[in-house]
Parts: sequence; C-alpha cells; structure tokens
Amino acid sequence: MLRISESTVRRMSHYYRFLQEMEDEGQVTVSSQKLAERGNITPAKVRKDLSYFGSFGRRGLGYDVKELKEAIKGILGLDRRWNLLLIGAGNLGSALFSFREFRNAGFDIVAILERDAAKVGKKWGDVEIQDFGLLETVLAEKKIDMAVLAIPAKSALPVAEKLIQSGIKTILNFAPIKLPYREGVTIRDVNLTIELETLTFLLQNQTEVFEKSI
Amino acid sequence: MLRISESTVRRMSHYYRFLQEMEDEGQVTVSSQKLAERGNITPAKVRKDLSYFGSFGRRGLGYDVKELKEAIKGILGLDRRWNLLLIGAGNLGSALFSFREFRNAGFDIVAILERDAAKVGKKWGDVEIQDFGLLETVLAEKKIDMAVLAIPAKSALPVAEKLIQSGIKTILNFAPIKLPYREGVTIRDVNLTIELETLTFLLQNQTEVFEKSI
Repeated sequence: MLRISESTVRRMSHYYRFLQEMEDEGQVTVSSQKLAERGNITPAKVRKDLSYFGSFGRRGLGYDVKELKEAIKGILGLDRRWNLLLIGAGNLGSALFSFREFRNAGFDIVAILERDAAKVGKKWGDVEIQDFGLLETVLAEKKIDMAVLAIPAKSALPVAEKLIQSGIKTILNFAPIKLPYREGVTIRDVNLTIELETLTFLLQNQTEVFEKSI
Repeated sequence: MLRISESTVRRMSHYYRFLQEMEDEGQVTVSSQKLAERGNITPAKVRKDLSYFGSFGRRGLGYDVKELKEAIKGILGLDRRWNLLLIGAGNLGSALFSFREFRNAGFDIVAILERDAAKVGKKWGDVEIQDFGLLETVLAEKKIDMAVLAIPAKSALPVAEKLIQSGIKTILNFAPIKLPYREGVTIRDVNLTIELETLTFLLQNQTEVFEKSI
C-alpha cells in the first residue's frame, strides 16, 4: 500500500489545474521549474511529488503538458464518475447540489437524505429528497462512493456514526465540527471559518503574508 | 511590517481551536509537545509559530491555556466584529448567510448585492438584497471590511475588478476560478472541488495518506 502525504495529493490537484491552464494557453511542454513557479514551491518538490506516481518527463525536455495532465487526472481519480450521497437538504446542501463545478469534475449527487419532513418528497433535478431513515435502503440500491455532510454541527457526530455503521468509508464534512478519527474511514473536514480567519489576521495586523504556496 | 507565512496563520487558527477544546476539557496548562501532537507537527514548529507574536509560556511549565487562547484570539482578529459584504444571493450565498459559525466567530454579513432582479428587494433576516449597481452607495454607507464572492465562475472576474476599483481590499472567493493577483489586494480562493479530489485519490488508489497535519 502506497503512503503518500495529504499535501502531496493537494499539490497534485493544483498541478492538474496549472496544466489545464497551460494546455488552454497552447503550451506543449513545461519544466518542473515553471510548474514550481506557478505554485511558489521548489522544482525539487514538484519532481518528488510526481516521482511517487511514476516516471514523467525527460531530462532537459521537461514534461509533455497534455500527457502529464492526463496522467494526473487518472491518479486523482478524475477520469471516472463518483456517486455522492448528500446528507442535508438545507441551503448549503442546495448550493453543493447546484454547484456545476462538481458535476464537471465527475461528482454526481445521486441521493439526498434529510430529517426535515417539510423537505422530504421534494425533488432537486432528478433526485428526490428522502427521509434519513431510508439510509440503508439507499445504500442497498445505489453504489455510493462517499457521503457529503451539509448539516449543523450538533447533528454531525450522530449522523457520521450512523453513516459509518452503515458502511460509508469516505466523508466530506462541512459541519463546523471536527469529527473523530475512525480506523478505516476517511473524513475531510472543510472549515469555512478558518478561511475567513486568515483574512481577518491580515486586516488586523497589516501584515503581508509572504509565503503563499500550494 | 511583519512578514508571516500563510501556513503559520492557518496553524494559529488550529491552535486556537485546540486551546478552546482544552479549556472546555478543564486543562489549565499545555506543553508545546501536546499542542504539536494534536496537530501532528513538531513542538519546534509550534514554538516557532508562536514566537512571531510574542513570548508565551515558561520553560518547563508550558503555556497557560486560557491566556494563550485569548492572545491568539486577538492575533487572529477574533476579539472584534467584522462587516462582510456578500455578493450573490444564490444558494451558496444563502448558506453562508445562515451559517451560524460565521456569526459566532465575529463575522456579520451587513449587506447583500445581487444582479438577479427577482431576488433584489427581498430580505434575509434584517438585511435587504440590493442591486449590484448600488455597490458604491453600500460602500459609502457601511464600513465594509471584506467582500465574499458567492457567484458563478463566469462573473467572478468582472465583479472582482469592480469591487477592487471601488476600494475593496480583501476578498473571500468561492467562485471556482482563481482570481489574478492584484497589488495591495488580498484574495483567498476557496476551492471546494479540491477537497473532493483528495477523497477520490484515496478511493482510487487504496492509499493510506500518512502525513495528515495542520
């Protein structure tokens, strides 16, 4: 089993975007130096990151933009579609559901579960909002790759427990609470407040953040 | 002018949360070792980060939990309230507006601008959705600290240009597009798709990400 750091994976996502932009600009090849500059990191780090996944590029010639982009697309699992189960049909859930970028990147919300009886039975596009009690049925009927939690902090922990008990192994959590580590389960917490805090720090301190890297 | 790396600021946000949790658990003091363990980083990094902002703790005794928490609260600008201008009254805008965690952390959305005439004139809580054309008026009437872009990718660039022309210096951008660098303007892009990509990478590769640190 490969062991790759989370920050390497994150940088791969950024390389993928850089390469997409470069391809759009008509660039055919790119050096690790140029990729590194785009992300404000060292060329050595770019080469190290890529080396986990194979041997790309040729000394002195650099990387073929399209070829490397396609390779990273496969590595990140973006060359296929993924089925998402959305938990929570509130505003955030609705925003995520209609977020076109998700669909473009291969993510389909194929089921929506919600506790609020007033919302259950409504349809978003082709997807009906179902009662959270139907979790097991949904998991039996649809091949769900991961769950997305768009619910308040107070219900996040019991809901996550229930999902994990039911066999969900991967969760993207937007609830403003850190979910505890569980063996064999991957949870990513997205904390929107932390994004704001970097900005207030800058406003507060008149500081110039100098090292902004991917 | 201080020069602090963005990753240091980000870690300060995490230390703040760790200290809050520790205070809730009744801990009075904490070592840099314990803070480091919580974030899966080295104690030296914790000490280095804190050293930018002053002299905290005492050798052999560690840090006073409450005192350090309050100090970081001030450093991050969380001991006061901030006025946010929300651009975009769609689902994501609505989710951000009703996100209680923002309010708890001192962020108030005091104005909402939108181009869709069907939405203009409606009220969310006490805040009326106004036409984007009223930008200058809003900026003259309210002390806005930063703008939050919750609009589609295609309108993000022209809207950001207009905001910057009108004097906005700080932007949190949720539109799935990287906004170009502008001298004297701080822009933070929140890319929700990248969060999903780390998860698909793991699903795709059966990899165990080993280095998950703050």
